[in-house]
Amino acid sequence: MARIVMKFGGTSMAGTERIRRVAGIVRRQQEAGHEVAVVVSAMSGETDRLVNFCREANALYDPAEYDVVVASGEQVTSGLLALTLQSIGAKARSWLGWQLPIRTDDAHAKARIESIDTDEILASMARGEIAVIPGFQGLTADNRITTLGRGGSDTSAVAVAAALKADRCDIYTDVDGVYTTDPRIVAKARKLKNVTYEEMLELASVGSKVLQTRSVSLAMKEKVRVQVLSSFIDENAPAADTLPGTMIVSDEELEGLDMERQLITGIAADKNDAKVILTAVPDRPGAVSSIFGPLAEANINVDMIIQNVGRADTDTDVTFTVPAADLDRTVAVLEENRETIRYEKLSTDPKVAKISVVGVGMRSHAGVAAMMFKALADRGINIQAISTSEIKVSVLIDSDETELAVRLLHTAYGLDG
Amino acid sequence: MARIVMKFGGTSMAGTERIRRVAGIVRRQQEAGHEVAVVVSAMSGETDRLVNFCREANALYDPAEYDVVVASGEQVTSGLLALTLQSIGAKARSWLGWQLPIRTDDAHAKARIESIDTDEILASMARGEIAVIPGFQGLTADNRITTLGRGGSDTSAVAVAAALKADRCDIYTDVDGVYTTDPRIVAKARKLKNVTYEEMLELASVGSKVLQTRSVSLAMKEKVRVQVLSSFIDENAPAADTLPGTMIVSDEELEGLDMERQLITGIAADKNDAKVILTAVPDRPGAVSSIFGPLAEANINVDMIIQNVGRADTDTDVTFTVPAADLDRTVAVLEENRETIRYEKLSTDPKVAKISVVGVGMRSHAGVAAMMFKALADRGINIQAISTSEIKVSVLIDSDETELAVRLLHTAYGLDG
Repeated sequence: MARIVMKFGGTSMAGTERIRRVAGIVRRQQEAGHEVAVVVSAMSGETDRLVNFCREANALYDPAEYDVVVASGEQVTSGLLALTLQSIGAKARSWLGWQLPIRTDDAHAKARIESIDTDEILASMARGEIAVIPGFQGLTADNRITTLGRGGSDTSAVAVAAALKADRCDIYTDVDGVYTTDPRIVAKARKLKNVTYEEMLELASVGSKVLQTRSVSLAMKEKVRVQVLSSFIDENAPAADTLPGTMIVSDEELEGLDMERQLITGIAADKNDAKVILTAVPDRPGAVSSIFGPLAEANINVDMIIQNVGRADTDTDVTFTVPAADLDRTVAVLEENRETIRYEKLSTDPKVAKISVVGVGMRSHAGVAAMMFKALADRGINIQAISTSEIKVSVLIDSDETELAVRLLHTAYGLDG
Repeated sequence: MARIVMKFGGTSMAGTERIRRVAGIVRRQQEAGHEVAVVVSAMSGETDRLVNFCREANALYDPAEYDVVVASGEQVTSGLLALTLQSIGAKARSWLGWQLPIRTDDAHAKARIESIDTDEILASMARGEIAVIPGFQGLTADNRITTLGRGGSDTSAVAVAAALKADRCDIYTDVDGVYTTDPRIVAKARKLKNVTYEEMLELASVGSKVLQTRSVSLAMKEKVRVQVLSSFIDENAPAADTLPGTMIVSDEELEGLDMERQLITGIAADKNDAKVILTAVPDRPGAVSSIFGPLAEANINVDMIIQNVGRADTDTDVTFTVPAADLDRTVAVLEENRETIRYEKLSTDPKVAKISVVGVGMRSHAGVAAMMFKALADRGINIQAISTSEIKVSVLIDSDETELAVRLLHTAYGLDG
């Protein structure tokens, strides 16, 4: 017998017919002899509807009251899943965030989970009940409802799994696992059996939005084994413990599971950044901090940075990327600080893509980056910037060349299925 | 300074634009120097939507989980009203049923309020905040959400007013008060300035569904002064304490307010009953209980009963009314018990209406009933059954004659405006 936390997203919970499908999947896990807790999202579209109500009510909304409104979406689906489980003969009950409680800090609308009291769930599971828990919500020390920020239900699920010391946290999504790259771009993309937390973090942060990044960090910290699965599997399929999803595991576990693993795990593409170029910045101490200090204060997240040699000996060009959504604010901040920075020209380019190759294997292998640069150069793709981490190499290219670059790297690293 | 509880129904809360209107009305009461708590319903249509989800999920739903789902509607409007009040410069916060808490028994889906902890609301109001409280919901001793049954928000408002020892409970509805009769039937219907709790109970139970009957009983028991008002008043009207609604008061208070009051307060019509006739029932001891015992066991509420002389000396005909919605079940119960009751024939007639004249004044005046029978007889309207209480006379007639009967009684008792 294992203890399993299952999580279903908004698409899986959209309407009573789909909830019936979810109930079938959950019920089968219990019938296989496992203790089961389920974490659910609101019906897809519902949170948007509630957020819009709040915006209409008060453009500068009080996040504490916003939380009261938007947390209701998960309350509804929790009750409905419990009802549906009962209708197919399972014992089930819902446990709202304030009933357990799931304690969070008081950063309303973006709260962080501090602790989860598991006494009630454990007792409930011991009685043979399936515990149904709304994701996304919690309770402050002074008894007010909080929410964890958009996509927070993944984090709720991992936190519940950690608190329950669950054997596994199964995240059911509208994809059936983590792929070597986006299957819509590369037909030969392969589903990965296993991926490490760190790889998942790098893949998530560069565009493979299968899981909320925060939930992966938490899983890594709490050593929760997370499995990504499709909720659109055959309803009558056996409740195998080894459903054909992707398991997210630690480095150590991966080595045991997958000795013959490829050097590179996956290729990710991210078109959500924009490039900013400051021309002829005086090359003096403090020049760089005069640029990035004000941006940091404005909470703008700068990603890749390169400093070129400028046209004169005393000048330099500084290029960096920011989220495209923050481009207007970035330009405003830089123009405000023009006199301090003393750049000659400010230009921007939203038409860029960041392509990353990710893999824990590259730690012990030289030449991964070189292979990437060569593969791109051979096809005449110009690299505008480079950044690396221990398990990732990223390059910035013209966004028109995204699909071409992903395809040829997928082949170059031997990932084609 | 007064302490006022204001209650707004689903029509008033239907969408952020209407909630903005409500916020204006509430804000003006506070600006007039009063302490204000507001009780709100879900947006109109929302509770139906949630109830339908529950039915789809599980036809025989667990009322505890049903409550989790349907209580969310009032949670949403509470948060939205608090946000909207803040947006127009008022201090406000929502207090959910479980946060106060509002304690109820554990009869899920039809719970009764046992007590309301007012410490938090009182402290909140003392800080100058408007307390926004969802109607319809409460909390059991073991921390589960309950709801009070459809229309329960009126009861919530009266209970909050009683617990807060409020000077007044203002119920804003889509009508602007209690009328001598339905203004859609009688153009000359007048709005009543005052009506007693007992009159309101009789009027409510015979079809003037301005307030939930339960809320009126509670107001009478707890001596809460209730005022019925329209929420569609001019948003910029002054926050007069004497808005032109109808005040529901005790007999004693009424005497002080309205010395020259009419004998009869109002005329009500109710088409929701159906008539059942059992022909040739043996006239023996126990005959009547053999009919009404099984109906009571089936939770069918029998209203008017008349026993005619039958065709033979030893026979009697028994006629009675039941809610039209229960007619099929009533017939089934009677047919099941045919051998015990030993009636000859069972016939039914859903085409009946109960017309009632109501007024505390009739206690001390003879001849009210006689005037009614004469007025109806003069126009050839046949009376099929009669029932009376201390402050009400009701007759059952053909439903086709409802409007005619109401109009002529309204004139006969001098109620025309």
